[in-house]
Amino acid sequence: MRLTAYGPSGLVEKEGATVDAFRASLADPTREVTWLDVDGVGDAALLEAIGQAAGLHRLTLADIANTNQRAKVEDYGSYLYVVLRSPGKTSGNGRIVDCEQISLCLGPRFVISFQEEHKPGDCYGEVRTRLRQERAPLRSAGPDALLHALMDASIDAFFPLLEEIGERLEALEDRSAVAMGPGTIRELHDLRRELITVRRAAWPLRDATGALIREQSPLIREGTRLYLRDAYDHLVQVMDLVETSRELATGLIEMHLSLASFKLNEVMKVLTIITTVFIPLSFIAGIYGMNFDTSHPANMPETRWDYGYPIVLGMMLAIATAMMWAFWRKGWLGSRDS
Amino acid sequence: MRLTAYGPSGLVEKEGATVDAFRASLADPTREVTWLDVDGVGDAALLEAIGQAAGLHRLTLADIANTNQRAKVEDYGSYLYVVLRSPGKTSGNGRIVDCEQISLCLGPRFVISFQEEHKPGDCYGEVRTRLRQERAPLRSAGPDALLHALMDASIDAFFPLLEEIGERLEALEDRSAVAMGPGTIRELHDLRRELITVRRAAWPLRDATGALIREQSPLIREGTRLYLRDAYDHLVQVMDLVETSRELATGLIEMHLSLASFKLNEVMKVLTIITTVFIPLSFIAGIYGMNFDTSHPANMPETRWDYGYPIVLGMMLAIATAMMWAFWRKGWLGSRDS
Amino acid sequence: MRLTAYGPSGLVEKEGATVDAFRASLADPTREVTWLDVDGVGDAALLEAIGQAAGLHRLTLADIANTNQRAKVEDYGSYLYVVLRSPGKTSGNGRIVDCEQISLCLGPRFVISFQEEHKPGDCYGEVRTRLRQERAPLRSAGPDALLHALMDASIDAFFPLLEEIGERLEALEDRSAVAMGPGTIRELHDLRRELITVRRAAWPLRDATGALIREQSPLIREGTRLYLRDAYDHLVQVMDLVETSRELATGLIEMHLSLASFKLNEVMKVLTIITTVFIPLSFIAGIYGMNFDTSHPANMPETRWDYGYPIVLGMMLAIATAMMWAFWRKGWLGSRDS
Amino acid sequence: MRLTAYGPSGLVEKEGATVDAFRASLADPTREVTWLDVDGVGDAALLEAIGQAAGLHRLTLADIANTNQRAKVEDYGSYLYVVLRSPGKTSGNGRIVDCEQISLCLGPRFVISFQEEHKPGDCYGEVRTRLRQERAPLRSAGPDALLHALMDASIDAFFPLLEEIGERLEALEDRSAVAMGPGTIRELHDLRRELITVRRAAWPLRDATGALIREQSPLIREGTRLYLRDAYDHLVQVMDLVETSRELATGLIEMHLSLASFKLNEVMKVLTIITTVFIPLSFIAGIYGMNFDTSHPANMPETRWDYGYPIVLGMMLAIATAMMWAFWRKGWLGSRDS
Amino acid sequence: MRLTAYGPSGLVEKEGATVDAFRASLADPTREVTWLDVDGVGDAALLEAIGQAAGLHRLTLADIANTNQRAKVEDYGSYLYVVLRSPGKTSGNGRIVDCEQISLCLGPRFVISFQEEHKPGDCYGEVRTRLRQERAPLRSAGPDALLHALMDASIDAFFPLLEEIGERLEALEDRSAVAMGPGTIRELHDLRRELITVRRAAWPLRDATGALIREQSPLIREGTRLYLRDAYDHLVQVMDLVETSRELATGLIEMHLSLASFKLNEVMKVLTIITTVFIPLSFIAGIYGMNFDTSHPANMPETRWDYGYPIVLGMMLAIATAMMWAFWRKGWLGSRDS
Repeated sequence: MRLTAYGPSGLVEKEGATVDAFRASLADPTREVTWLDVDGVGDAALLEAIGQAAGLHRLTLADIANTNQRAKVEDYGSYLYVVLRSPGKTSGNGRIVDCEQISLCLGPRFVISFQEEHKPGDCYGEVRTRLRQERAPLRSAGPDALLHALMDASIDAFFPLLEEIGERLEALEDRSAVAMGPGTIRELHDLRRELITVRRAAWPLRDATGALIREQSPLIREGTRLYLRDAYDHLVQVMDLVETSRELATGLIEMHLSLASFKLNEVMKVLTIITTVFIPLSFIAGIYGMNFDTSHPANMPETRWDYGYPIVLGMMLAIATAMMWAFWRKGWLGSRDS
Repeated sequence: MRLTAYGPSGLVEKEGATVDAFRASLADPTREVTWLDVDGVGDAALLEAIGQAAGLHRLTLADIANTNQRAKVEDYGSYLYVVLRSPGKTSGNGRIVDCEQISLCLGPRFVISFQEEHKPGDCYGEVRTRLRQERAPLRSAGPDALLHALMDASIDAFFPLLEEIGERLEALEDRSAVAMGPGTIRELHDLRRELITVRRAAWPLRDATGALIREQSPLIREGTRLYLRDAYDHLVQVMDLVETSRELATGLIEMHLSLASFKLNEVMKVLTIITTVFIPLSFIAGIYGMNFDTSHPANMPETRWDYGYPIVLGMMLAIATAMMWAFWRKGWLGSRDS
Repeated sequence: MRLTAYGPSGLVEKEGATVDAFRASLADPTREVTWLDVDGVGDAALLEAIGQAAGLHRLTLADIANTNQRAKVEDYGSYLYVVLRSPGKTSGNGRIVDCEQISLCLGPRFVISFQEEHKPGDCYGEVRTRLRQERAPLRSAGPDALLHALMDASIDAFFPLLEEIGERLEALEDRSAVAMGPGTIRELHDLRRELITVRRAAWPLRDATGALIREQSPLIREGTRLYLRDAYDHLVQVMDLVETSRELATGLIEMHLSLASFKLNEVMKVLTIITTVFIPLSFIAGIYGMNFDTSHPANMPETRWDYGYPIVLGMMLAIATAMMWAFWRKGWLGSRDS
Repeated sequence: MRLTAYGPSGLVEKEGATVDAFRASLADPTREVTWLDVDGVGDAALLEAIGQAAGLHRLTLADIANTNQRAKVEDYGSYLYVVLRSPGKTSGNGRIVDCEQISLCLGPRFVISFQEEHKPGDCYGEVRTRLRQERAPLRSAGPDALLHALMDASIDAFFPLLEEIGERLEALEDRSAVAMGPGTIRELHDLRRELITVRRAAWPLRDATGALIREQSPLIREGTRLYLRDAYDHLVQVMDLVETSRELATGLIEMHLSLASFKLNEVMKVLTIITTVFIPLSFIAGIYGMNFDTSHPANMPETRWDYGYPIVLGMMLAIATAMMWAFWRKGWLGSRDS
Repeated sequence: MRLTAYGPSGLVEKEGATVDAFRASLADPTREVTWLDVDGVGDAALLEAIGQAAGLHRLTLADIANTNQRAKVEDYGSYLYVVLRSPGKTSGNGRIVDCEQISLCLGPRFVISFQEEHKPGDCYGEVRTRLRQERAPLRSAGPDALLHALMDASIDAFFPLLEEIGERLEALEDRSAVAMGPGTIRELHDLRRELITVRRAAWPLRDATGALIREQSPLIREGTRLYLRDAYDHLVQVMDLVETSRELATGLIEMHLSLASFKLNEVMKVLTIITTVFIPLSFIAGIYGMNFDTSHPANMPETRWDYGYPIVLGMMLAIATAMMWAFWRKGWLGSRDS
């Protein structure tokens, strides 16, 4: 737990704060905004204590603890409860490990943020840096501006991920022009799964942010509303990128299927032409390879002709030529575009 | 039929209750809430009797008896009628046997619940346990809180089922990376059928719950509305999980088709290369296996050459090399990604 | 034309009624409701006469005569005009012959129903039976209750059809687990066509019924509105069944395509393995079957070796083993799930 | 340009009218409605002159001249501007040559219609015939009734086209039951293109007509609104037919793909069975066709056995039987449904 | 930066203007409209200076600098901020290089336009030409008319691009009737990507323009609203063309897949017929090519018969005829439509 309290007179930061320190900070009139940042939501007793100190409803505490919530905004009268999902750290192989659930409670004088687990380098580092600056506009604004800053930091975490996905898509497109093997197919499949994950996180967040703008909660001041509209625009952009990436991925798969069916046809044509030309010729050679007793005049008289061999060879050539002509007529030998 | 009546003064439970006991309980002013739990809806006379005791409309009774209703909420003025479908027991092989229809009637002082059939261990066990606790908040709340508790128990029954489906999907994904046979395909098909069933049950229930929240029925108090919103959120989560699972299943099938077309191309290339290289060679061997009478000088003179045999072998090697070169040019021998 | 007039004092039924009888019945104050049931809409003069007697608009008469209308409800002030489509008789092979258009006009004291053609055993038999009962609630209710009864009878005619489609789908699913031939594919195609037909009939009817409930026409009394809501629920259920059946049919076709591509791969693997193993061996046998003159020492010296034959056989065995090993390495011989 | 002016006192028709004649007709109080029908929109000066005479806005004139508009209705206060697209003449091979743009301007005392080009036998012939009748209701109705008549004539031109498409679809379905070649595939593709064209024309027209009904323009009288609702219903029917045809065409293509994959499997099975049975047998025959020097005892001793030939033949029979048994076990020889 | 200031008294144009010149122009009451056209948005200090001079909000400046915005319209009270994306120059091979972001700020007396980069021949050339004409209506209209003129020029830039795409689609359709190779498939894929890009640019622009029409901003006068509605219609037309092109492209791909599966079946039939007929015959020839010692009476007695050879040849003919008959029965030799 990290406590950050600030007002016009100054800023106090405290790592490893207790609930009592939070209570004291709320009671201190010189500290206009108190931000309690909780890492980990597994300690039910701690949640209960924070809930009592800040006046949170039982249902809110249950939602904070259950980390499978969809993004939403709920107005409990005395405070606003915001749930959102932010892309966590991406693992070494580029997959999303998890979309972390972040719960934010905005009261008249406080903001409480709950992150799923403690991580070095979370997405709120930049907000803390801005708060520490003496004359930052954020410092003189109210808790609603802090709420916006935290939401905006979570939303901006989507963009590097989507850029990376976009780059992987382009690499796949380049590669698929040459050949598309099982590796490419599986990578495309993984990429679509990630897009589903991002969309699941961003879509309800967009609706929730839209509701936050429309709802006339007294906790959100008019000036902050303009900034929330900006956050909303960012989410619309995230969704736009996700949808475009999905369409590109689907297009790649369809192109692959079309190309595969084309290549199969090409392979089969080669096989069919070669087989169809040589099988009848081999059959004729087989005929004259039979060991019938040629002392009987009716048995294989051709083999005793003076020019039997050249005649048979000529016949074979004629058959092969006729076959090739038939294939040419069917257009199987025609030139194709590359 | 199980009768549970409670008020601030205490709780009375009675298995195998009669309609008269229900009437008496309604008339007793010390019992604030009377919950009649009916297992089985096949006895028309019993339904009629309950309907008269509680003042239910003829259409409500018809809907209770016909167990193919979609989830809905109907306001009959003096009472609210809620139909919902809850996943029944899953059979041994993991398939949903049936989605059971549950009808709930909420009057000013009673709740009547109709389950399709009597089962040991239904989803209301936990509600009964909570009611039996002396100081449970549910006990001092009105019948609308009981209605919410019953609906919530039915909705929560979806989650274990969806988790199981999610685990099966992951197992399928792992397996499909190795090979995808008819067993995997059929299991995916079964899984999609189950998802259709869950969606059919959950979708109208979500709309009905939403309507229950919006409609300003005097039977629902303001405090309960907050809890119903929570139940609504759970249903949105169910739908979200169903849609995600459906997309994953569709993605798996598409990946399978892409991989199958890739593998078919690979198999066909091997077949074509081998066949195309050896068939012309076999034909040449067949030529020189013919039994033409070599006493005629025009017949197979090559067989009488001193070095006929090495020359023919060399010619075969040249043809095979040329063929392989042609295939290499077409890129059929190129390295592929794995 | 069948005329049925009733009121508290009694019921009069008349087959083959004339327009004059209809006029007379309308004028008789003891007959509260007059129901004129017209079979066949081809007689323009008759339609005109009925239209004048009941005060129908020219556009209404045109819509009645043109039997390609979509379901709709139109309020002409003095009367309501309802068009709906009901599944006609299904022919011997289970196909829908036609969805019959039924037009209903509800006036303050009359209901006129137009069916496309005269059929023994139409879906209104049950309504007539109810009317003939002395103390039926329908008899003492107004013409709007009769309108609802006729609409409900038409809607209920969808359910046996959908049940039959559901049974056929299940039979197809069972069959497709064994094998899926052109017969199964064509039956699935027919089934989807029928579902399109049912949906085309039911969808606009649902919207029209919804409009009938919302519109505050004085011709529909408050009590009947509740029954119309019930009819609306039935139509929602019809649409729900249609959509589920469509999804199941689509799923079956996709499963079939996946299975077919899997089976093709299996067949091709067998062909490729057998061909690839034996073609090189046959080529070697062909080599030693050539008839080169072995008196020349360079020609086929192997055939004159003491152990040439066993050496060649051993070589063939070695090649076959190497080939099988290569296939095993590619995983083509691996076990698959069934 | 054709000028048709009428009122209670009579009707004046004039081919090749001028703008001055139009102005004069507008000024004549005995002519209640003046209809100016302009063929061809390429003459900018003429358009300008008409625009000044009728008080049309500059944007309206630009839209009339640019014949790529989507259907729309615009209320310019003093007049209504309606654009619609109507199927032009279908060419000899059944394709739509073009969907002609028709612009209609409805003023308080005039209707101006602009057709793209002059054609004998346009769809307004029937409207002219009705106007010429002495006691036609259209003659005594205002210009809004004429607008409806012209729109209705344009909309009704869709139906013969859709009927023809429906008949072609049925013919294709009959043919596809036998065989589906490239001709059938291409015809289906053409048919879907035509449906896209019709939908593009009808969809915005439906929305525009709906807007015309809702908007309370004083130029449309209450009685005409009822007729416009009828035209709207016709457009809904057109869209319904288009959607149904599209679904049928898609179903046909999917059926074709399923059947093709089934037939491919059948063909491949036959090929594989024949090849797999005979290739090993041919290999054995090849073995004993080798010319090893049988004076060496280790070389091909079987050929010198007394019963070597029958033994080898028996061995071949045994191998063939084992192969067929294996195929039978795999179900490849099983009966299939036809 | 280009400054264009005009009023009833005249027009002043200045290339390479400074922010001070802009300020001065705003202060000059004789210049009713000042248009500042900025090429390039990379100079943060310049943006800051312009923002201060025109009173732009910090968020507006951030959006101008970040060139990945979706099209939108934002009302900041004292000015309107419009973002739109316009197709940039198409490169030599017909691909869209980039959709350029254009930001427009409309104040009570100024319009500022920001283009991403400086290009000769941008789409505003025509607007400048119109402004230079002495008696152009645009010159006497306010800044909102100039905003419309700039938006309209950006929107009209979509049409040549879409026409080019349409022509390429038609060329592809013509080519695909002959043959469809990897080149055609890849071109279709590229074309669909371009359509996605255009749609991404046009869709939000349409919504933004619609919002601009609905919102009653005092900066937009009533007369200009009519022109904005015209721009909106153009965007609807763009979307319509995009959707139609997408459907045509999808239809082409589906036709290709159907044709490919048909051709594959044809190829496989030829292969199977030839192989199946000749393989058994070759086997028989192989049998009689074996070198069994015919001095043993049981070994190959047929070879010593007087008419062994003609009998075997006759047997082969019988087998071939039977095979062909079987294929004819299966319909593989039947005529097909072309």
